Amino acid sequence: MDSPFLSLGTNTYHVPLHLFHENRQKLATRLVEGTQSDKHIVILQGGPSPLRFDTDHEPVFRQESYFWWLTGVKEPDCKVVLTIQSASNVTTTLLIPKLPASYATIMGKIKTRDKWKKGYQLDQVLFTDDLEGFLEGEIKSMFSESQRPVILLLRGQNTDSGIIYEDLIPKFESKVLNENVTLDTVTLFPILAECRVHKSSLELALLEHVTQISSFAHAYVMRNIRPGMHEYQCESLFKHYAYFNYGSRLLSYTSICGCGPNAAVLHYGHAGEPNSRLIRDDDNCLFDMGAEYQFYASDITCSFPANGKFTDKYKAIYESVLNAQRAVYAIMKPGVSWVDCHEAAELEIVKGLYKIGIIKLPLTMKEQEKITGTNHEDSLPDESTIATLKDLVQSYRLGAVFMPHGLGHFLGIDTHDVGGYLPGYPPRSPLPGLKSLRTARTLQINMVLTVEPGCYFIDHLLDEALMESNILSQYLNAELLQEYRGYGGVRLEDVVTVTQVGIVNFTVCPRTVSEVEHVMAGGKWPPLTDEAPELYRKKLTGPISPLPPPPSK
Amino acid sequence: MDSPFLSLGTNTYHVPLHLFHENRQKLATRLVEGTQSDKHIVILQGGPSPLRFDTDHEPVFRQESYFWWLTGVKEPDCKVVLTIQSASNVTTTLLIPKLPASYATIMGKIKTRDKWKKGYQLDQVLFTDDLEGFLEGEIKSMFSESQRPVILLLRGQNTDSGIIYEDLIPKFESKVLNENVTLDTVTLFPILAECRVHKSSLELALLEHVTQISSFAHAYVMRNIRPGMHEYQCESLFKHYAYFNYGSRLLSYTSICGCGPNAAVLHYGHAGEPNSRLIRDDDNCLFDMGAEYQFYASDITCSFPANGKFTDKYKAIYESVLNAQRAVYAIMKPGVSWVDCHEAAELEIVKGLYKIGIIKLPLTMKEQEKITGTNHEDSLPDESTIATLKDLVQSYRLGAVFMPHGLGHFLGIDTHDVGGYLPGYPPRSPLPGLKSLRTARTLQINMVLTVEPGCYFIDHLLDEALMESNILSQYLNAELLQEYRGYGGVRLEDVVTVTQVGIVNFTVCPRTVSEVEHVMAGGKWPPLTDEAPELYRKKLTGPISPLPPPPSK
Repeated sequence: MDSPFLSLGTNTYHVPLHLFHENRQKLATRLVEGTQSDKHIVILQGGPSPLRFDTDHEPVFRQESYFWWLTGVKEPDCKVVLTIQSASNVTTTLLIPKLPASYATIMGKIKTRDKWKKGYQLDQVLFTDDLEGFLEGEIKSMFSESQRPVILLLRGQNTDSGIIYEDLIPKFESKVLNENVTLDTVTLFPILAECRVHKSSLELALLEHVTQISSFAHAYVMRNIRPGMHEYQCESLFKHYAYFNYGSRLLSYTSICGCGPNAAVLHYGHAGEPNSRLIRDDDNCLFDMGAEYQFYASDITCSFPANGKFTDKYKAIYESVLNAQRAVYAIMKPGVSWVDCHEAAELEIVKGLYKIGIIKLPLTMKEQEKITGTNHEDSLPDESTIATLKDLVQSYRLGAVFMPHGLGHFLGIDTHDVGGYLPGYPPRSPLPGLKSLRTARTLQINMVLTVEPGCYFIDHLLDEALMESNILSQYLNAELLQEYRGYGGVRLEDVVTVTQVGIVNFTVCPRTVSEVEHVMAGGKWPPLTDEAPELYRKKLTGPISPLPPPPSK
Repeated sequence: MDSPFLSLGTNTYHVPLHLFHENRQKLATRLVEGTQSDKHIVILQGGPSPLRFDTDHEPVFRQESYFWWLTGVKEPDCKVVLTIQSASNVTTTLLIPKLPASYATIMGKIKTRDKWKKGYQLDQVLFTDDLEGFLEGEIKSMFSESQRPVILLLRGQNTDSGIIYEDLIPKFESKVLNENVTLDTVTLFPILAECRVHKSSLELALLEHVTQISSFAHAYVMRNIRPGMHEYQCESLFKHYAYFNYGSRLLSYTSICGCGPNAAVLHYGHAGEPNSRLIRDDDNCLFDMGAEYQFYASDITCSFPANGKFTDKYKAIYESVLNAQRAVYAIMKPGVSWVDCHEAAELEIVKGLYKIGIIKLPLTMKEQEKITGTNHEDSLPDESTIATLKDLVQSYRLGAVFMPHGLGHFLGIDTHDVGGYLPGYPPRSPLPGLKSLRTARTLQINMVLTVEPGCYFIDHLLDEALMESNILSQYLNAELLQEYRGYGGVRLEDVVTVTQVGIVNFTVCPRTVSEVEHVMAGGKWPPLTDEAPELYRKKLTGPISPLPPPPSK
């Protein structure tokens, strides 16, 4: 029999509630380890019911991510209290709003507290109104009279948005609480955020699932796209596939469906640029889309020609980005710096651009002669050229002209997951490209990251690099670059997890040129044989997790 | 040649920018008429870029509704200034944020101010930083030294949410502005909200379009639903149909896909009850879903048996709700009170329940005998019975036990559109049912409203009504009601506009029992003949507005 789980109805993936229990245990252990004390009271506020401006329009509520990590509670307006007596003794109390009788008419049956308790496998459920009395009791039973009780609250900066998360500081009416309790807003944040960096096996399984369904959704879009359609129709196909078949009600971020020049806009698809282009036969497409399931995210990018046939020009760019993934996977393992991975990706892209002739080395004329030929196989740079290119990448940040974003980011409940720049870890670099990395940490087992090298032709970055005063200008072929302006770009993005010896790639998308052309011509996916084992798509041809039947329409 | 328009790409409905120009003219005219003065400066703030809690997750931005009504500008972080010199002399200045160069890399090409101006057909585009200098100039040129300049800001209460809309009061650094200008937060709100109550012909055409595509999407869901599917899959079908075919990226509200007992939960489908039921063969379905296009809303409810075949039991409830629509359409026209329409709907539902025997009149034994038969045609209540039922509806609010919501609401840019209880119009009733009406106004030409009678079996409302102390209990057949508990409910919701002589119904959904059964059996829609002209679906069989081809998959 299944242990208690979350799912959307009976057919979709079952997320064991034990996942959240383990998360709470992990936090308790880390708190006890990281502080002088065994005993802690933690209060966290869930997200409030949202409304659009002054209207009564309610967007679908999506739980705040820290609260979700701790509870798995999908409803708004709750609080949670963890009473930690020791690393192995944690009591979880959920506080829910007291609902008026009219709630039953409008929103649905009012669940009893017992139903909440069983439904979420928690120790106790009270009403939010009872918070103060409950805390008074907890404090009395936990702390001796000589100890000053401490309550831990969440406060800290999200290093992707720059926003300070600041949980509501409770304004207690109770004298006991006001006069006797210290509210600590320092201890919790770094420990809780760090807990989310390394995924548990249940979290890994869920992230693998949501990445698998996102991969299939991408393949579905590739199979159905036709020149003459509009970009937004591809977004619609992706959403429908993921929701209809796998219960992914929300995507983890706004779909980026850039075709033609839009493929060079990193976060295209927002309200100001709403995926509205008519897709032309000679457009190249860059589709960055990911499903979310039970508030765990995936994040995948595929790039391909709209008409399903790679030209030599496009293939050369595409292969260098795919080589960047290969180069990164070859070195990723515990102990390796993410910054080194980023530079390994940049080097492959720079090598690819060198082969095409977009990047030139004024001093090695021999190389120059080679690259004017069309046979790219012949034009592999020699070792001294590679050394020069490596220097251009590392010292001059040449790669950032074409890949102005970081190699990838942590992924979990948030698409850009937390923990990138916590105190005690390497700080953000100020250099081009590297400054966009969402973490500079050393890889550790069970981290989950995206690997998303890209190569784009972005006018204002090219203009800047080509300025005479810019040292990079001498390495760029301005004339040839003219042909690539407006050409868009390529990004390939996988979700991988770090293992003891290397990585597992959760993404099972068509990636090689022949795989992409096969699927776009209507071919089956996933395939029977893996023609690119160096991408570590372990589940590509092996047993995959049980999935509902393919879409009926 | 098309005049300048908004659309999503080239294939979707073209919304003329003139719509917003007309809106601004209307506001200017009403301001001049409604105040002592010709000259006005109006400042309105657009919606800000949204982020989810502390993260950098950006939900798709949806413009604030008043700002949208005035400008048609889809981008966040803008402001607009209307300089009104007279009813016919309005200058519109859009203020846009100055974007950093990195915007071009991440979000897309930075549009020149000239491009904004032409793209939105406005008089002038400045940067938000320039607001103060600009206002100083406007004030100098508009007001003589003896006049104290007034700037109108928006402040007022949304009567659906209860929230006070309060536009940012600008904190001017400029001495000239601080010392010389009066900020008026009283005048603008009631006039602007009232402007939105009566729709222009361009707005009517757009609302008709979005209602038409929503109707077709409902028919698509009816045709594809099967017992064994889950409710959320129907939501996915609806969304995909509306987005893929007609560019409706956002729905106007969260889809309510209630089956079985969930059909009695008025706003089912939210995050706490996420359309997750497995649809059973004998379930009755209540699907309340509406597309949004260019931020104009539709709002339609269809009810039907999951397996496509009406039982007698279900048909009796369904017909009484459909009769309620018929009764309302028969009386709707300018000068009629919306409260009277509500009561006309209640009466039909109560009559229907009387026919079934759920409502009983203890004093007329003759009637009682009649209704024990199964032939409903025979059990039409006589005139004196109807008079009694009418009295129960009006004086005892019997209808509210089964229809605890209002008959309908204004619809426009917001699903629950503004203007329901503005000063000078009838106030909200405190009585059951009537207190849920979102307006108590008298109908006027070019108002757009939903007409959505419903009949539900809601445990806590039935329990309340059946209490011995409740005067209504004597009119209810408690035993028979047992059979209807958990049976769900029926709602039929159309979007109609008030014309000089009556209404036009924009909704072109299957409505009669035979229409619904026909479509659910795979039949074509729309039909060739209109079997229910009393529903005023004027465009049902006539020429419909040009639409893209049906979905390819």
